[in-house]
Amino acid sequence: MPGKGEFGRIRDYLAPLALDGAFDLTDDAATINPEPGHELVITTDTVVEGVHYIGDEQPEQIASKLLRVNLSDLAAMGASPRAYTLNMTLPGDVTDAWVRAFCQGLADQQRDFGIGLLGGDSVSSPGPATLSATLCGEVPVGQAIRREGASPGDYIFVSGTIGDGALGLLAAKGELAVIDEFEATLLAERYRTPEPRIALGLALRGNATAGADISDGLLADIGHIVDVSNVGAIVEFAKVPLSSAGEFALKAEPMLWKNVVTGGDDYELVFTGPENLVEKIKSSGVPITCIGRIVSGDGVQLVNEQKKSLPIDIGGYRHN
Amino acid sequence: MPGKGEFGRIRDYLAPLALDGAFDLTDDAATINPEPGHELVITTDTVVEGVHYIGDEQPEQIASKLLRVNLSDLAAMGASPRAYTLNMTLPGDVTDAWVRAFCQGLADQQRDFGIGLLGGDSVSSPGPATLSATLCGEVPVGQAIRREGASPGDYIFVSGTIGDGALGLLAAKGELAVIDEFEATLLAERYRTPEPRIALGLALRGNATAGADISDGLLADIGHIVDVSNVGAIVEFAKVPLSSAGEFALKAEPMLWKNVVTGGDDYELVFTGPENLVEKIKSSGVPITCIGRIVSGDGVQLVNEQKKSLPIDIGGYRHN
Repeated sequence: MPGKGEFGRIRDYLAPLALDGAFDLTDDAATINPEPGHELVITTDTVVEGVHYIGDEQPEQIASKLLRVNLSDLAAMGASPRAYTLNMTLPGDVTDAWVRAFCQGLADQQRDFGIGLLGGDSVSSPGPATLSATLCGEVPVGQAIRREGASPGDYIFVSGTIGDGALGLLAAKGELAVIDEFEATLLAERYRTPEPRIALGLALRGNATAGADISDGLLADIGHIVDVSNVGAIVEFAKVPLSSAGEFALKAEPMLWKNVVTGGDDYELVFTGPENLVEKIKSSGVPITCIGRIVSGDGVQLVNEQKKSLPIDIGGYRHN
Repeated sequence: MPGKGEFGRIRDYLAPLALDGAFDLTDDAATINPEPGHELVITTDTVVEGVHYIGDEQPEQIASKLLRVNLSDLAAMGASPRAYTLNMTLPGDVTDAWVRAFCQGLADQQRDFGIGLLGGDSVSSPGPATLSATLCGEVPVGQAIRREGASPGDYIFVSGTIGDGALGLLAAKGELAVIDEFEATLLAERYRTPEPRIALGLALRGNATAGADISDGLLADIGHIVDVSNVGAIVEFAKVPLSSAGEFALKAEPMLWKNVVTGGDDYELVFTGPENLVEKIKSSGVPITCIGRIVSGDGVQLVNEQKKSLPIDIGGYRHN
């Protein structure tokens, strides 16, 4: 490890990011306490260079994605973000400049989402950069939004537009030649910088019957909900909201519809509840679309406008 | 990834390890709440195959070491262990049998230390196995043992014996030919399976003025304490407690004394306080040795029996 070494990097780049209770990262551990009447919500995710990001990104973008995919899990639970720990496993030849820029990206997200660093470590590895973050949020006791809780008759809603993550990955790799550069850039940016739906998650507390974020793929994540809720789901493909770049892509290459519903990395929320749920959450300012219904039975069925089942392997998701 | 895939492994091997509040790992995140009057203490550490462990260990041993190095940080803070999250980044060709054995190792530690799994992820990587755990413990509010707090006149104490981690690493790699196989095996086992000093940490709460665990090396970790406490330390090498295997090794190869004080991986506790501190903590059942004094000034000085300074680069530790 050239340059400052682990201790120098922690002191110069990470310590300034420390939250109250983290003792400027000079201790073996940090303390955190939920507000009265609240409990902590904890989630963790890893991103690996070449697997979860391409490697041509700016360090700031990688830091942003690492925290945002975790913040999206907190959003899915209806939690307010508070703090995080960080595990940086970096190739031996990574430069101080890279680490400094990565930490600048962390600082930007800390400011945008009101979180602070609790602790972490920085180690060298002969392998690719491997970055884990563990996020702490909080919810009023017992009010976390669960995947369990969907009932037959519930409507299925999604935030924003679906498929931009998967199409954006193709675009970022230069494999989406069917659309023009402007649209490709928009999609790639959606892949690289997901938007965790924190405000929507807060609005869903006490209103949604179940919820998850869309990280494995729309159908896979609905699959997770119906599995633990012991119900089934019917999703109407024609109702799945697309961005205009997504519409362009599907018009040019119709087979991309499979990427849209199985591809993952959207980091929108999918949730269930009564028909009037939309009224209760419009303060969150995110477009919401009803895409289907919860039914008795099991599994996820995708149907076309004629209510005919579309045959599809729903990817990341395996039915038990 | 052959075999069960990520979802199958989580369902079959990890979900049975889930704590209450972790919803059998079927949710995006888990909830945890400290007992009334307590706060959570959070720490995280990563181990990389070929860097922090050799790679010839049994999966159970690797799981044990991963949790134990983190539990040692909780011990250093005087915290009771509660729960943890896990990030498994594994080579694509790792088998289900390896993951099952690794999870058996986690289960063993969960039973021994009274902790449960809150959540985690499992991803593939072209690099070496990279395993992070984030441990949550709890302490009565404001009673965490800090590195800050040592004052001139305080005595410096360590638990157990020092240097076995560093000598054990040499032994485990077959590079400690100066001692016989029996002693080498004992030392290697100390390196592979550290003993977090949880009971001692609890006994030190309210009694020690400062403390840390010995992970970077005896002198380096005392260095961390004196730096944030704005004091200096004088450590007497002759008082540093050695195991009988350690004594054998140093007798055969005197230059190994440097490994003993700089090598790290002991996971004993080093702490400061008044002379009668030993009386107050003997209930913890761990041998305690006074090895020096805190003084005004800065830095860590190692002296021989004639009180002459021993010149040494104290490794992991860099003075600011």
